[in-house]
Amino acid sequence: MKATVYHAPGDVRVETVPDPIIQQPTDAIVRITHACICGSDLWFYRGEEEWQPGWRTGHEWMGIVEEVGSLVRTVKKGDRVLAPFAFSDGTCEFCHKGIQTACIHGGFWGTTNDGGQAEAIRSPLADGTLVAIPKAVENDDDLLTAILPLTDVMSTGHHAAVSAGVRTGSTVAVVGDGAVGLCGVLAAKRLGAERIIILGRHESRLEIARRFGATDVVSSRGEEAITAVKEMTQGGGESVLECVGSESAMATAIGIARPGGAIGYVGVPHGSGQNFNLSRLFMNNITLRGGAAPARAYIPELLADTVAGKLNSSAVLDLTVDLDSVPRGYAAMDSREAIKVMVRP
Amino acid sequence: MKATVYHAPGDVRVETVPDPIIQQPTDAIVRITHACICGSDLWFYRGEEEWQPGWRTGHEWMGIVEEVGSLVRTVKKGDRVLAPFAFSDGTCEFCHKGIQTACIHGGFWGTTNDGGQAEAIRSPLADGTLVAIPKAVENDDDLLTAILPLTDVMSTGHHAAVSAGVRTGSTVAVVGDGAVGLCGVLAAKRLGAERIIILGRHESRLEIARRFGATDVVSSRGEEAITAVKEMTQGGGESVLECVGSESAMATAIGIARPGGAIGYVGVPHGSGQNFNLSRLFMNNITLRGGAAPARAYIPELLADTVAGKLNSSAVLDLTVDLDSVPRGYAAMDSREAIKVMVRP
Repeated sequence: MKATVYHAPGDVRVETVPDPIIQQPTDAIVRITHACICGSDLWFYRGEEEWQPGWRTGHEWMGIVEEVGSLVRTVKKGDRVLAPFAFSDGTCEFCHKGIQTACIHGGFWGTTNDGGQAEAIRSPLADGTLVAIPKAVENDDDLLTAILPLTDVMSTGHHAAVSAGVRTGSTVAVVGDGAVGLCGVLAAKRLGAERIIILGRHESRLEIARRFGATDVVSSRGEEAITAVKEMTQGGGESVLECVGSESAMATAIGIARPGGAIGYVGVPHGSGQNFNLSRLFMNNITLRGGAAPARAYIPELLADTVAGKLNSSAVLDLTVDLDSVPRGYAAMDSREAIKVMVRP
Repeated sequence: MKATVYHAPGDVRVETVPDPIIQQPTDAIVRITHACICGSDLWFYRGEEEWQPGWRTGHEWMGIVEEVGSLVRTVKKGDRVLAPFAFSDGTCEFCHKGIQTACIHGGFWGTTNDGGQAEAIRSPLADGTLVAIPKAVENDDDLLTAILPLTDVMSTGHHAAVSAGVRTGSTVAVVGDGAVGLCGVLAAKRLGAERIIILGRHESRLEIARRFGATDVVSSRGEEAITAVKEMTQGGGESVLECVGSESAMATAIGIARPGGAIGYVGVPHGSGQNFNLSRLFMNNITLRGGAAPARAYIPELLADTVAGKLNSSAVLDLTVDLDSVPRGYAAMDSREAIKVMVRP
């Protein structure tokens, strides 16, 4: 089969690799119908994360089950399924607590595991990991596209909002206008936020943010942005969503949080722990909560809303490529020509 | 009157200063009967915090009201009162939310305000700040000594435990065996923790920790301590109390927290934001919550338990000095000869 393989910064290739086979009785083999390129894939693509040549790529995918191991009970051949960006056994302490990203037997797609930017994938721990899409909608193409972001960015935006304590009437500030930030806006709106301020600078993205529920836009940077948000909110947002992971994004998030408020952070830390202004958090009793989103915990709820037509973040998928064009998709995201790329193998 | 005045690192002096007078109709003048020297006073005493010569010292105190301004309603001349380490108006958004340390009109004792290591003090915002001690117990010397730590360290230990989410059956790890760490142990026990591991190295303090409810002691440092706690708990404590504020204490706290758990941090940051391991928090969805304790919010509840004989952290007060001997008290704490010093002006 064909799969995307990392070679070097700026160099991912679609190559022929061995077909995946059942290795454990808890495995499933899934033929991939939809996948994505993630903003977090740009970290290795830009050489800002150490990757080994030969590692597989892609952690967001949906598909049709082709084969299951002898112990798999919850999905069967022919089922259309989606997967969260991490696999998990569904039975350990942390899975039971709803933080499947910390599953003691779990892991992440790609690197030394199969990746989703491919024709097919071996899913370990299929029962704990895969979620079947209702039969009634499994051929609704638009709906499938709306479901696809639940594999990562929509669940991650939701995690940011939940972690930041967004509730009915909240004043929310979202740092970052990438796919996760935009999904954070949508998640905050869904949870009842009254005012949603997005901090970003890309007009096409801000337009989506407004459609998703943003009420205000701040396009300045650094101290200027902090001052602007504090003035607009008379002291800062109760709930701040940090959706980038850089040092400057975290500094902004800390700067605009209201005393007693919370920062929901979901940007994979790439500098965000540097020059960390703990003193401001301390003096203002601001909570820092978040991390790798337990998408597996959120998917059932978000899937139900998506199927019911109440949740649709597919506007973040603004470029579609076939599998052979995955390298072009990376380049388009790297140059910000695309917000997020959908791959249709 | 006499009051303690900062001159330079290692140099605090008890000097004659002008008697405090009512300046605002919301003020009260209180004759101080009990005060403390705080572990956080050592930061300026050791030159690790920039202080100006002439600033007053002492933020933990109790006393008897001598005079009140025309607008003061909740206390009157002759009342025995205690004060949290910060004053607050009791009426602003943040006071209503129970984070009086972020009061928009509030402040902290000492520096350019009057300090508690003195014969008397002017309390601004008396209605929002002072709490009257029940008449029935106001002459019970032992009970007054048990009440005194509520002004800071007991409330701060409680804040750490609450922020770390301690509840019935919790497994708790406490970083630091200073007065706050010891009070954190007691607070965790009071909230129903089943297992309480204290990380510390001073036998006399650990003995108090055991009396306060610690079930286990870890006396190693750094990575060794992290490994020990993770082994004892099979993966880390659900609730970690960071009661120091140094870089190494925070690193330890982050290292021993269980996935999905929370760190309640109350050590005033003096390095704890440096080399901040946000990645471990991120990958394990560990919450960081805490800050300057809203002692004013907690005092009513903790005072009731203290008066009822159910809460007594006075064992942390292991040296008593008169006002003239305050400099000796600082030296005793600096050399770790004393855990915490009580001052009886």
